[in-house]
Amino acid sequence: MGSSAGAVVDGRAPPVDKGVDYAQYFCTYAFLYHQKDMLSDRVRMDAYFNAIFQNKHHFSGKTVLDVGTGSGILAIWSAQAGARKVYAVEATKVAEHARNLVKANNLQHLVEVIEGSIEDITLPEKVDVIISEWMGYFLLRESMFDSVICARDRWLKPTGVMYPSHARMWIAPIWTGLLDQKLGQYHLAMDDWHNFAEETNSYYGVDMSVLTKPFAEEQRKYYLQTSMWSDLKPNQVIGTAAVIKEIDCLTATVADIKEVGSKFSSSISTENTKLCGFGGWFDVHFRGRVEDPAGQEIELTTAPSVDHGTHWGQQAFLLHPALHVSKGDHLSISFFMDRSKENHRLMEVEVECDIQQYSGKPLKTLKNKYYIE
Amino acid sequence: MGSSAGAVVDGRAPPVDKGVDYAQYFCTYAFLYHQKDMLSDRVRMDAYFNAIFQNKHHFSGKTVLDVGTGSGILAIWSAQAGARKVYAVEATKVAEHARNLVKANNLQHLVEVIEGSIEDITLPEKVDVIISEWMGYFLLRESMFDSVICARDRWLKPTGVMYPSHARMWIAPIWTGLLDQKLGQYHLAMDDWHNFAEETNSYYGVDMSVLTKPFAEEQRKYYLQTSMWSDLKPNQVIGTAAVIKEIDCLTATVADIKEVGSKFSSSISTENTKLCGFGGWFDVHFRGRVEDPAGQEIELTTAPSVDHGTHWGQQAFLLHPALHVSKGDHLSISFFMDRSKENHRLMEVEVECDIQQYSGKPLKTLKNKYYIE
Repeated sequence: MGSSAGAVVDGRAPPVDKGVDYAQYFCTYAFLYHQKDMLSDRVRMDAYFNAIFQNKHHFSGKTVLDVGTGSGILAIWSAQAGARKVYAVEATKVAEHARNLVKANNLQHLVEVIEGSIEDITLPEKVDVIISEWMGYFLLRESMFDSVICARDRWLKPTGVMYPSHARMWIAPIWTGLLDQKLGQYHLAMDDWHNFAEETNSYYGVDMSVLTKPFAEEQRKYYLQTSMWSDLKPNQVIGTAAVIKEIDCLTATVADIKEVGSKFSSSISTENTKLCGFGGWFDVHFRGRVEDPAGQEIELTTAPSVDHGTHWGQQAFLLHPALHVSKGDHLSISFFMDRSKENHRLMEVEVECDIQQYSGKPLKTLKNKYYIE
Repeated sequence: MGSSAGAVVDGRAPPVDKGVDYAQYFCTYAFLYHQKDMLSDRVRMDAYFNAIFQNKHHFSGKTVLDVGTGSGILAIWSAQAGARKVYAVEATKVAEHARNLVKANNLQHLVEVIEGSIEDITLPEKVDVIISEWMGYFLLRESMFDSVICARDRWLKPTGVMYPSHARMWIAPIWTGLLDQKLGQYHLAMDDWHNFAEETNSYYGVDMSVLTKPFAEEQRKYYLQTSMWSDLKPNQVIGTAAVIKEIDCLTATVADIKEVGSKFSSSISTENTKLCGFGGWFDVHFRGRVEDPAGQEIELTTAPSVDHGTHWGQQAFLLHPALHVSKGDHLSISFFMDRSKENHRLMEVEVECDIQQYSGKPLKTLKNKYYIE
């Protein structure tokens, strides 16, 4: 049937059906409700606000392109910080709201809202700054950075600056109560299935047992293999965190970010605990560029935090069953993330993990597949 | 942007983008979890089971087409009831599960599962029976009957029988606690917005007030104008119910079902109550055809019921504010339903209602728009 999947030819991504992509992805962003959720994220807002207003020299008298402006907030701040001209590009109908917001804030002479996808639109000039809030869950979900790369390659001056300028992905071993919760839900769903199959047989004379295995696989994928949004606290991180990817927004290509592979190790730092899985998060930095650095370097981090949670939270990749570990135990981890073939904005992850006790005794080798949906 | 909307030319529906339609609609049915939900609906299952097995003369030695077979249950029952050959057509990947289920029940020599959309596939012969469970919320949501019509016009013998053979849509005035709940949620959302707008102004120097009205419209649509799934009990129906549409499945055309318009009246049958809105539901009947009637006529109703709720429930169209009414008050109602221009599987509804007290005194005229999403 007409799914959006296509064959990968010559190692290039299949062409994306724009209508399908809209139905699956952009449509969410057309709602002010969703825009408000993002605008209410204080950590997100503060980081961009400070990055702009503490680095006015990057904006004053300059031209700016905001990729995926949404309600228009970053474009408005850029203008308020002194930009000569801001192009605010938005693919959804929210563009109209952005235009009204710009006008209501008396910036219509500086900010031009353009409704269209960045791949299709044309600007009358190249720009000094590209600003964008393109980060999805675990940084790369949504694959929106592709559009930022496209914008950069087409519209950024050779001397231009990216906001943010750098991004990193992190992984750490975690403890989480989600594990028992999800396992419980999985078992409930299976109990329910078995009752259903028995009843269908006795009432309606149809033997459903051949579907038990695929149903279990479907439920396992949903409850156990799909990474979970989490609001982890620092004490749930039970070992050293590792950077698995660094992106220089000025130079990264789509090929650089399509797949993420990393081998790294982590030491358990908590006595007598359970390894329930891995937490994944990201941070981005606003550093300007080497020849034209930020006066004040700003960080936006989505790491586990007591007080500064974000709407991104962290992604939890759960292990079933959890494993008893203790301080000094050593994890050798191989992490690989690729885009889903069915939907290039979703991700598939493989994690291999060798666990050695502090004594050097091998404990276990784990291999798991996950879906970031 | 590439939404699925298209202009209506010459009164005909715009062509449907199959990829978009899959992303928006069919994808749900690809999950066994969803199939199980439908298979666990006892009212639904009993009706089809009884319709088939109490009318074996329609199946014995006959050819059958099951449109949208899902897990394959109706095709399997048709074969068990003696069909010579059953074609079971399914547009999603569930077709593979159906094929396995057929085999596990030793019917692979009788039931042929065909993965494809009914509009695209070809059968080697015309059939005696078309069976399908095509009913969406309030009967016509999902617009799946279009595919049944297509199947009938292409593949049913002139003497063939439709299962079900008839369908009706019902409307009645109702009382429901959902009204206060939804109104409360709407007010909470708006309070939240006002706080948000104030904070955004004071912390970040952006005046959001121009977006208050469109945000309120969006929330109003979501909480107050979108019809709600409900499990109404008979005592929540506070006036006479009316049939607003009758469909003869053997003769109805897409033009007949694309729009539903009806003028009807209802008398309040409960003393001192509140008119909170209107409930909509449907029933279907399995009567065979005039020249070849069912021996035992079966009804599947989704009307408000104490004990026999269905997964379809009823759709509640809420009135804000509710209106005090009493026994003998008279409602003159004009109901009009059309397909959404953005998605032909969703509906838009307009209800006009003149309310007269028992004494003849006009009480109020209401006019509301609703979305079935």
